[in-house]
Amino acid sequence: MKAMVYRGPGKPSWEEVSDPQILEPTDAIVQIETTTICGTDLHILKGDVPAVQEGTVLGHEGVGTVVEVGAAVKNVKVGDRVIVSCITSCGTCAFCRAGVTSHCQQASTAGIGWILGHLIDGTQAELVRTPFADTSLHKVPAGLTNEQAVMVSDIYPTGYEIGVRYGHVNPGDVVAIMGVGPVGLAAVATAKLHGPAKVIAVGRSQPRIDFALEFGADVGISTNHPDWIEQVMAETDGLGVDVVIEAVGVPQTLEDCFKIVRPGGRVANAGVHGRPVTLPIDRLWIHNFAFTTGLVDATSTPMMLNLMSGGKLTPEQMVTHRFTFAEFEQAYETFSDPGGTNCLKVAVSRG
Amino acid sequence: MKAMVYRGPGKPSWEEVSDPQILEPTDAIVQIETTTICGTDLHILKGDVPAVQEGTVLGHEGVGTVVEVGAAVKNVKVGDRVIVSCITSCGTCAFCRAGVTSHCQQASTAGIGWILGHLIDGTQAELVRTPFADTSLHKVPAGLTNEQAVMVSDIYPTGYEIGVRYGHVNPGDVVAIMGVGPVGLAAVATAKLHGPAKVIAVGRSQPRIDFALEFGADVGISTNHPDWIEQVMAETDGLGVDVVIEAVGVPQTLEDCFKIVRPGGRVANAGVHGRPVTLPIDRLWIHNFAFTTGLVDATSTPMMLNLMSGGKLTPEQMVTHRFTFAEFEQAYETFSDPGGTNCLKVAVSRG
Amino acid sequence: MKAMVYRGPGKPSWEEVSDPQILEPTDAIVQIETTTICGTDLHILKGDVPAVQEGTVLGHEGVGTVVEVGAAVKNVKVGDRVIVSCITSCGTCAFCRAGVTSHCQQASTAGIGWILGHLIDGTQAELVRTPFADTSLHKVPAGLTNEQAVMVSDIYPTGYEIGVRYGHVNPGDVVAIMGVGPVGLAAVATAKLHGPAKVIAVGRSQPRIDFALEFGADVGISTNHPDWIEQVMAETDGLGVDVVIEAVGVPQTLEDCFKIVRPGGRVANAGVHGRPVTLPIDRLWIHNFAFTTGLVDATSTPMMLNLMSGGKLTPEQMVTHRFTFAEFEQAYETFSDPGGTNCLKVAVSRG
Amino acid sequence: MKAMVYRGPGKPSWEEVSDPQILEPTDAIVQIETTTICGTDLHILKGDVPAVQEGTVLGHEGVGTVVEVGAAVKNVKVGDRVIVSCITSCGTCAFCRAGVTSHCQQASTAGIGWILGHLIDGTQAELVRTPFADTSLHKVPAGLTNEQAVMVSDIYPTGYEIGVRYGHVNPGDVVAIMGVGPVGLAAVATAKLHGPAKVIAVGRSQPRIDFALEFGADVGISTNHPDWIEQVMAETDGLGVDVVIEAVGVPQTLEDCFKIVRPGGRVANAGVHGRPVTLPIDRLWIHNFAFTTGLVDATSTPMMLNLMSGGKLTPEQMVTHRFTFAEFEQAYETFSDPGGTNCLKVAVSRG
Repeated sequence: MKAMVYRGPGKPSWEEVSDPQILEPTDAIVQIETTTICGTDLHILKGDVPAVQEGTVLGHEGVGTVVEVGAAVKNVKVGDRVIVSCITSCGTCAFCRAGVTSHCQQASTAGIGWILGHLIDGTQAELVRTPFADTSLHKVPAGLTNEQAVMVSDIYPTGYEIGVRYGHVNPGDVVAIMGVGPVGLAAVATAKLHGPAKVIAVGRSQPRIDFALEFGADVGISTNHPDWIEQVMAETDGLGVDVVIEAVGVPQTLEDCFKIVRPGGRVANAGVHGRPVTLPIDRLWIHNFAFTTGLVDATSTPMMLNLMSGGKLTPEQMVTHRFTFAEFEQAYETFSDPGGTNCLKVAVSRG
Repeated sequence: MKAMVYRGPGKPSWEEVSDPQILEPTDAIVQIETTTICGTDLHILKGDVPAVQEGTVLGHEGVGTVVEVGAAVKNVKVGDRVIVSCITSCGTCAFCRAGVTSHCQQASTAGIGWILGHLIDGTQAELVRTPFADTSLHKVPAGLTNEQAVMVSDIYPTGYEIGVRYGHVNPGDVVAIMGVGPVGLAAVATAKLHGPAKVIAVGRSQPRIDFALEFGADVGISTNHPDWIEQVMAETDGLGVDVVIEAVGVPQTLEDCFKIVRPGGRVANAGVHGRPVTLPIDRLWIHNFAFTTGLVDATSTPMMLNLMSGGKLTPEQMVTHRFTFAEFEQAYETFSDPGGTNCLKVAVSRG
Repeated sequence: MKAMVYRGPGKPSWEEVSDPQILEPTDAIVQIETTTICGTDLHILKGDVPAVQEGTVLGHEGVGTVVEVGAAVKNVKVGDRVIVSCITSCGTCAFCRAGVTSHCQQASTAGIGWILGHLIDGTQAELVRTPFADTSLHKVPAGLTNEQAVMVSDIYPTGYEIGVRYGHVNPGDVVAIMGVGPVGLAAVATAKLHGPAKVIAVGRSQPRIDFALEFGADVGISTNHPDWIEQVMAETDGLGVDVVIEAVGVPQTLEDCFKIVRPGGRVANAGVHGRPVTLPIDRLWIHNFAFTTGLVDATSTPMMLNLMSGGKLTPEQMVTHRFTFAEFEQAYETFSDPGGTNCLKVAVSRG
Repeated sequence: MKAMVYRGPGKPSWEEVSDPQILEPTDAIVQIETTTICGTDLHILKGDVPAVQEGTVLGHEGVGTVVEVGAAVKNVKVGDRVIVSCITSCGTCAFCRAGVTSHCQQASTAGIGWILGHLIDGTQAELVRTPFADTSLHKVPAGLTNEQAVMVSDIYPTGYEIGVRYGHVNPGDVVAIMGVGPVGLAAVATAKLHGPAKVIAVGRSQPRIDFALEFGADVGISTNHPDWIEQVMAETDGLGVDVVIEAVGVPQTLEDCFKIVRPGGRVANAGVHGRPVTLPIDRLWIHNFAFTTGLVDATSTPMMLNLMSGGKLTPEQMVTHRFTFAEFEQAYETFSDPGGTNCLKVAVSRG
C-alpha cells in the first residue's frame, strides 16, 4: 500500500510500504477513506517528537471501512464504516475504566493512548492496523459524510474535552477562548453545548477571528490591540471571565489567561507547550481558581456523533481544503502555511 | 392600592386594600409594573391550597420599581427596577446556604420559601412588601422588557431547575418532556442550555405541540396516538430516553415517565400532583435510574438574566396575551381556559 | 467437576457436571477457592427468577485461581489469584463506557451484566467460565485472604454503590440505613468512606442491630418500637435525615423511607422488590428530594481492594459461618435461616 | 477594652483601645472567650501585608458570646455562644450565592471576605464588631469547648476546603500532604472524611511528622532524605499520587507537587506564597491534571460542628499551648518559634 512516511525532520513522503497485518486478536484493519493532518504532525516533522522513529507512517485521524478483524473483535465487523479514534485504549486498565483513556497503560509501554502515527504506524495510509478495535473504533451513523466523521477523531474532542469540559463551562458563563486555530475553533463550536452567555474569541489575525464568529463566537478581540485585555474585561462585570481556554501553546498566552480569569473561575489549557511558564502563585494563591491540562481522551466522540446526526453539531465547517491521497504532499504544504492559505483543516481522501 | 384578593373558592376580585408597609429592616416595597398568573393561582381559587387565607392578595411573580427599603437592605435602593422572585429566601439558614431556598426556614414558619400570594400578600397588586429583599429581588439589567423579566420570576426557573437541572441533561442526551404547558415549554426552551441531541415534546393537543416546536423541540408526539410510547422509543436506540421531565401533574403521566426512561436515566418531576402514584419498584429496582422532585429555588434567575441580555434566551415568547391591571379579572378568565384561548402566559401591567 | 446445580424450586444439589470450556477468546476458566451464597440465590430457589433454567450452576461471587485463558485475554494469566465479579461486563458497549456495567449490552441478550448463576453457569462450582475476563476479573493483591476477597465480588459493592454512592452521602450527613442484613451492613460499613456525622441503623431484631453497631453504626433503632420514626427524627434537627438507604426490599420499608427523608435529601433503594409501592407524590412533589435504584455495577471493587490492603475496610467481618464444598448443602441451610443461625454471610471453600 | 494592636512591623502590643460599636443593623458585638494566632498574623507583623494599617486590632479567629446585635440580625441573639468565622460574608452577592464567600463583594471594597484583623479590627481583643452577623457567626452546639470551637474559625476549614475538597479526595485515593504545620495537619485530619486508602505526610522535622501520624497520616516521609520523592512514589503503584496538597507556601514545595502527581490527579495549593513558581507546562500539558488555589470560604464550619458533636472530628488536638489574654505577647512568642516550642496552635483565653 501507499502511505505518508516519516523520514526524519523535513518533508514527509507518500511512498510504498508493506500492508499492515492483524497481530493480536483484538486488532482490526481499516481501509482509510478520508484522513487529515494535525498540528502535531507538523511538530513531528520538525523533529520535536523524538519518540517517532524513522519509517513510521504518520497520522492519527481517519474514517474508513473495516476490511479484517481479529478473533476477539465484537463491536465492529468487516464492511463497517468506522472512525479511527486518535486514542487507542484497551478499555480495561485502571485509567481506561476511569475515563482517562489518554493514559491507557496497555496501548503502549509509554503509558499513553496516542500511539497511531507516533509509536506505531498511523492513518495517513491506504490501510491501518488499529489495536483494541472494540474500544478504539466508532461506527459512523448512516447519513454522515467522511468529512464530518474525520473531524471527531481528534480535533473536536480535543477542543471540547480539554477546553470546554475541563473548563467546566456552565450555563450563563462568560468564556474566553485564546487562539483561533482548529483547537480554539472546536472549543468555540462546542462551548455552546453548555449554554454560555458569551463566548469571546481572542486571536491575532482578523481572518481567523472572523472564522471564530462563524463558528459561534459572540465577540472577537484581536491581541494586536495593546488594550485587548481591557477589552476582554469590559465584556465581563469587570472581575474577569468564568472560563479561559488556552488553545495556542505559547507561554505568553497562558500567562495572559491567568490575568483574565475571575476569582472562582477556571483556566483550561488545550495548547501543546514546548517551554515552561511562570505561574504567579504569589498573586493567585488567593484566587480560588482551577487550572487543568490534558491530552484528549476522545471519549466524547459517540456523543458528538449523536449531535451530528441531528444537525446539532457541524464539524464539517472546519474543512477548508480537500485533496486526494495522490496530492498528500500538497496537502501538507497547504496545512503548514495557514497564514498564506487560510487553511483550517484539510480532508485527504482515497479519491 | 388595588389588588387581586382571594375571597375564597371562586373568582378573585380586583379591589381596594391597604398599602403594604415596611415591617422589618430587611423588607422592601415594590411598585409592580407587570405581573402574571400561575397555574398555582388557579389551584388556590379552586380551594385546593387551604393555607391561603381569605383576604390574601394573590400572585408570586412580578417586575417593578423599588419605592421603599428597610434600614438593612443593601443590594437594592429606591428607584431600582427589580424582579420579585417567587421564592422569598433569607440567604442565611442552612437550606438557603445549601441552595435549597425553596425550603428557607426563615421565610415562613412553614419552612417554605413560597410565601407571596400564599402565606402573605402577593404581587398581583399595585404594591407589594417583599421580605428579605437583598436575597429575594433581582435587579433588571438595562435593555430587558417587563415581559421578559416577569418570565424569570418563576416559570422559566421552574422548568429549568426542577426539570432540566434536576434531570441532569447532558450533551448528546435524548430528552422527553411530558406536557406542553408553560412549565413544559420552559423546560423545552432551557434544555438546550445543556446540549441535548434531541428534545421530544409529548402533549395532547396539536396547537400546544406546535408551540413546543417553536420553543425548540425537535420532535412533537401526541398522546392521542395509542402507540405514542412506541413513537418515543423509536426516537431512541430502543432502550429509552436519557431524561424524562414530567410537567403535567397527573398520575398517569408520571407512570408513563417510568416506562420510557432508559437504564441509567433520570425522571425529573416538575408537575404539581394531587394524588399518589404507583411506583413499579418491582420492575425498577434493577433499572439504575434517578427520580427527583421539587419546588423551584429560583436561584437560576441571575444566570437567565445574563443569557437574556445577550439574546440567548427569549422567555418573552411565552407571553401570548396582555392586559392592564383594570382588566385583571379578564386576564384570569383567559388564563383559566387555555384550550379555548390558546393562552400560555398573560402579562398584566400597570397600564 | 462438582457444582451446586439448580434443579427447579426447592433445594439445590451439589453434583457432578461437565467441566467448563473456553468458548470465546475473551474467556477465562477460574478454579474457585472460596465462594458464598447471596440472598438472590434463595430467590432463585423459590422459583422467583424464571430466567434461571434448570441445570444451571448457581452463584455469582467467588475468588480463585485462573487455570486457562482465551487468546485475547491480557489482564490476567494462568496462575493469577482473582476475584470473579458478580457483574460480567464487556467494557466496550455504551453502558460499560458510561460506568453502568450492570446494563452491559454484550454480556447477555437480556441487556444485563448479572449472568453468572443466572443466565450461564456460575461460581458455586469447582471451576467457572468467566466471559470478558479482562473486565470481569480482578487480581487479588498479595496479603488478602479469600474471605476478604469474596466479600467484594458483590455484597460490599452493592451496599456501597447502590446505597452510599447513589445516596450521595456527604461529610456531615445524617444517614439512616433501613435493614441490617448483609446489604444494609455493607452500607453501614462503607458509609464512613464519605464522612457522615451519624449513621442510624434501623432494623427489627436486636441481635442484627447489634451487628450494625459492630459495623460502625452510631445509633441502632428497632422498628419493634411503635414510635421508631420519632426516634429517627429525634436523631436529626427535626427535619429528617439527609440520606435514607433501603436495604430490605419490602413496600412498607420503602414507604417509610419517604417519611424520614428531609427536604433536599436522598432515598437510595438497594433492596430487591417483588411488588409495587405507593409513591406519595402529592406530598413529595414539593420536597426537593432524589430517589435512586439500581443493580450493582461492581466498579468499586478495585477501590475497595486498595482500602483493604491498608486495613481501611474489613469486609471479612461479614463472614460468620464457614463450610467446605462438601458441606455446600448445609451452607445453604444455614444461610436460609438467619433468624435461627444469626448468619450474615457464609464462606464456602475448596477445603 | 484591651486588644492586640498592630503598630507596624515588629512586635504587637496588648493595649487599651476603644470599645467597638454597632455601625450597621446587620452587625453584632461579640465578647471573645478564646482566640488564637494564625500564620497570617505573623506575616502581617513582618510587614508583608501592606493593606493592614497601623492601629488595627489583629486576629480573625475566635469564639465568644454575643453582647449586642443590630436591628436586622435574626440568626443570633444576645447571650448566644458563637464562633466568629475568619470570613465575613454578606450572603447575598453573586460570589456568596455561589459559595465563594472568600470573594464576597460587600464585605470590603477589596472584594475579599477576610477583613477581620486585616481591613477592620479583629478578634484578638476583649470585644469585636462582626459585620453581616447572620452569615458570619455560627452558634456553638452545646457540649463543645472553646478550644474545639476556635479551631473551626479558620484552620480546619482551610485544610479541608482548599486542600481536601478542592483536591477532590475520593475513596481509595492515595493523598500526599506536603507540609506538617497547622494547615497540613488539618488536611491530614479531614482527608479521612473522604475515605482515602493512604495519607502520606511529607515534612522536614521528625517531631512534626510524628504529629501527622497522630492526626491520622498512614505514612510519614522526611524531605531530609535525598530520595524522598522515590519514597513517595513507592507508596503508589509507581505512577504517582492521586491528590497532592501543598501546605507550605514555598516555590520548591509546589514544584515538587508537580513531580509526584499521577496523570488524572490533582494538586491543591493551600500554602500562602510570596514568589512566583515555574510551571513545567512543557511536561504537564499532556498530564490530564488539575491545579487549584484558594482562600478559605469557611462554609464547611457548620458541617464540622456536626461532626464534632458526635466525636467524629477532634480539632482540639491542634491546641498545644494555652495562654490568658494577659499573656498574649508571650503567646505570640511561642507561636512564632514552632521549631523551638513545638507549638501547633495556641489558645488564648479570657481567663
